[in-house]
Amino acid sequence: MTPYIEENKDRFLSELKELLSIPSVSTAPEHKQDVLNCASWLQSHFESIGMENVEILPTEGHPSVYADWLHAGDDKPTVLVYGHYDVQPVDPIELWTNDPFEPTVRDGKIFARGATDDKGQVFLHVKSLETMLKSDGSLPVNVKVLIEGEEEVGSEHLVPLLERHKEKLACDTILISDTAMYSPEVPSLCIGLRGLAYMEVEVTGPNRDLHSGSFGGGIENPANVLCGIIARLKDEYGRVTVPGFYDDVEDASEREKQDIASLPFDEEKYCEANGVGASRGEFGYSVLERLWTRPTLDVNGMWSGFTGVGAKTVLPSKATAKISMRLVPNQNTHDIAKKFEDYIVSIAPKTVKVKVTDLHGGNPALTEPDSAGIQAASVAMEEAYGKRPVLTREGGSIPIVLDFQNILSAPVVLMGFGLQSENLHSPDEHFHLENFYKGIFASTRFFHQMAAQG
Amino acid sequence: MTPYIEENKDRFLSELKELLSIPSVSTAPEHKQDVLNCASWLQSHFESIGMENVEILPTEGHPSVYADWLHAGDDKPTVLVYGHYDVQPVDPIELWTNDPFEPTVRDGKIFARGATDDKGQVFLHVKSLETMLKSDGSLPVNVKVLIEGEEEVGSEHLVPLLERHKEKLACDTILISDTAMYSPEVPSLCIGLRGLAYMEVEVTGPNRDLHSGSFGGGIENPANVLCGIIARLKDEYGRVTVPGFYDDVEDASEREKQDIASLPFDEEKYCEANGVGASRGEFGYSVLERLWTRPTLDVNGMWSGFTGVGAKTVLPSKATAKISMRLVPNQNTHDIAKKFEDYIVSIAPKTVKVKVTDLHGGNPALTEPDSAGIQAASVAMEEAYGKRPVLTREGGSIPIVLDFQNILSAPVVLMGFGLQSENLHSPDEHFHLENFYKGIFASTRFFHQMAAQG
Repeated sequence: MTPYIEENKDRFLSELKELLSIPSVSTAPEHKQDVLNCASWLQSHFESIGMENVEILPTEGHPSVYADWLHAGDDKPTVLVYGHYDVQPVDPIELWTNDPFEPTVRDGKIFARGATDDKGQVFLHVKSLETMLKSDGSLPVNVKVLIEGEEEVGSEHLVPLLERHKEKLACDTILISDTAMYSPEVPSLCIGLRGLAYMEVEVTGPNRDLHSGSFGGGIENPANVLCGIIARLKDEYGRVTVPGFYDDVEDASEREKQDIASLPFDEEKYCEANGVGASRGEFGYSVLERLWTRPTLDVNGMWSGFTGVGAKTVLPSKATAKISMRLVPNQNTHDIAKKFEDYIVSIAPKTVKVKVTDLHGGNPALTEPDSAGIQAASVAMEEAYGKRPVLTREGGSIPIVLDFQNILSAPVVLMGFGLQSENLHSPDEHFHLENFYKGIFASTRFFHQMAAQG
Repeated sequence: MTPYIEENKDRFLSELKELLSIPSVSTAPEHKQDVLNCASWLQSHFESIGMENVEILPTEGHPSVYADWLHAGDDKPTVLVYGHYDVQPVDPIELWTNDPFEPTVRDGKIFARGATDDKGQVFLHVKSLETMLKSDGSLPVNVKVLIEGEEEVGSEHLVPLLERHKEKLACDTILISDTAMYSPEVPSLCIGLRGLAYMEVEVTGPNRDLHSGSFGGGIENPANVLCGIIARLKDEYGRVTVPGFYDDVEDASEREKQDIASLPFDEEKYCEANGVGASRGEFGYSVLERLWTRPTLDVNGMWSGFTGVGAKTVLPSKATAKISMRLVPNQNTHDIAKKFEDYIVSIAPKTVKVKVTDLHGGNPALTEPDSAGIQAASVAMEEAYGKRPVLTREGGSIPIVLDFQNILSAPVVLMGFGLQSENLHSPDEHFHLENFYKGIFASTRFFHQMAAQG
């Protein structure tokens, strides 16, 4: 903690309360003006702390707020900080202890919609920039900040905005604080996200629904066939059987494996929380290894024939399933989609027609643990929390991470100060003030580390 | 053909036209009075030909018409003739060549709604009874006739009616003409119907839908599990793998196998008509053997997770399938349902919960080819058509057949004079007049044969 942060703690908190009291619910048309007000509030705030070129960037939806400070010198790296100022709706409102837009502190936590997702986390960087600008009169690196207003509605206009302002947003590292630490006791950095290949498989048997009495045993049933195909997509060891599926899978590094093994993980509680008797996935790996470092395959949906109440004796004409594969470095979504399609076609019996469609996909992302951004974030977290952060990954994809990396060609650092337990998207959302202040300090240390490495 | 039939051909036809012109559509509330009018018409007609105890039996829906003649003596058997006077709706009306309730003869066929299903077929027995009563002054056996008005709406009130009038309807053989001959050149008698065990299998994984990115590879997916279970219900030879499934299956008799083998069946055309490249079922049997004499298993419907357009990354909490097994003599629906449930439970992994529900069932039915009714019908058909009828079966179940057999404890003879090609349930429904007249003659011969055997 720096003296400046100590001295201004109360003001930082009251400013955060001000920001949290603006109901910038991006999904709700009736809050459109509140969203704009929130952008204006940030604009004024950036100006007040000495950030430059402050500007509201319009989109076809809600605008983004931009600010920068670029006087660190050409020999210093440029960091782009990203966050979002829009928030989730508040329903069910009756389950909130306080009004979601009347921020209230209890037990060292601030309760309000957006507290942890993402106003509290984005504002700690704003306060970090202020701390450095006011204490030192400058920033150790060049900094750009982009705070969008549509994250909770799928960042619909972010990609065109990034493309339109590619030069303005050019940077060496992208810093995002919109994720959670592993646990209150375990600060962490997320270095990887799984990719996705999302497919649809449609099996057609007879040219119309048939009576299962008159035709059952004569004509192949496409629902039985589809089940047979899906059953053959994984073996008894939970491994995906699509030929070549594992060809490009890169093993986790030894450091990462050790980090994962060292993490507190109560498998019994995990199963209990999800209502299952045991976890299940690829044999030979722990649950966290499976979720973060191993690819997998899941049926996301399927349907065929009669799905109403009671008994209708139909032999269906069609059966369809949505099947997605989570990918890890260095699998490629197009390559996997092609291998999947080829395999399905090869195992489908000749008595049916099969159609495979690639619905959606994205490549996995992995930041080098030795990259400048991760190194700087690691030191910064250790200085703030007194212990080295562990390297974690996410089992899911965060599409904007890929968008940033693809369009701006810079690596993303996910330095989260939230906690999974902070009710994001739910009533009584909150943010631990300890992490708010530690986050401000960690953020200042991150920029200094980037300068030292630059 | 008897002289009486020859002499009265034209009148029989004009009476049939009268019956067919009554729009007794049982599904349509606006035709409720027409349905009643049709019942009254039959009542008067029975009275006019010398049948006795003619009566309209009310139900909670449309009524049935009853008539009998019971003076053949205690040493003669009693035959109950069953048919239905209600008809299907006429839509799409624009595809009819003539008004569906203005019966029109073209090319030796009478076109009208209900011509073959079932007014034409039930009326030929009425004319057979008239022929015998007018020619001989008596019937060779005791005869009861029950013509219901709700067959096209699922015979909803037939079971209570049979139970209420169990004594009145007591008989030795039940004669039904509401099915088709194998082909115009191949008169046939249906001696068997498959039974049914219709089950629902629900697999529950996690206690709620999960994000397939955050949990895929950690928690078992119930849709994948359900597919795995279904895939294991049949082996590569198309045989059902439920332990004990075939224990009670009775092989078809040698006569029946020969009959089936002798039937004209164009497998290529069959596949083409159903839009498949090849037929498929249990190895080692022909298509007709599979459909008629072998049990099978079909998925009738299944659903899980996201079934909308696009890609939603859900790991579903539940996956459900409706799975039915067609049964053949002497399988028992309750026994098979139990074996199915036991097997499913035994192969389900411990990572999911599985619930098996018996939704619906019925036992298979097979009439002894040597029974009095089949023997009499066989001789009668041979006398009418000049060739011995082949013995066939139906792949489906006809629930009323089981209801009759169960409640009245008498075997059913299915002597059909319709043809599959006569557009039943479709526009331009028709009935071949040749089969109407041959049917009248065959019916008279049936009753005489029953008397001779009695």
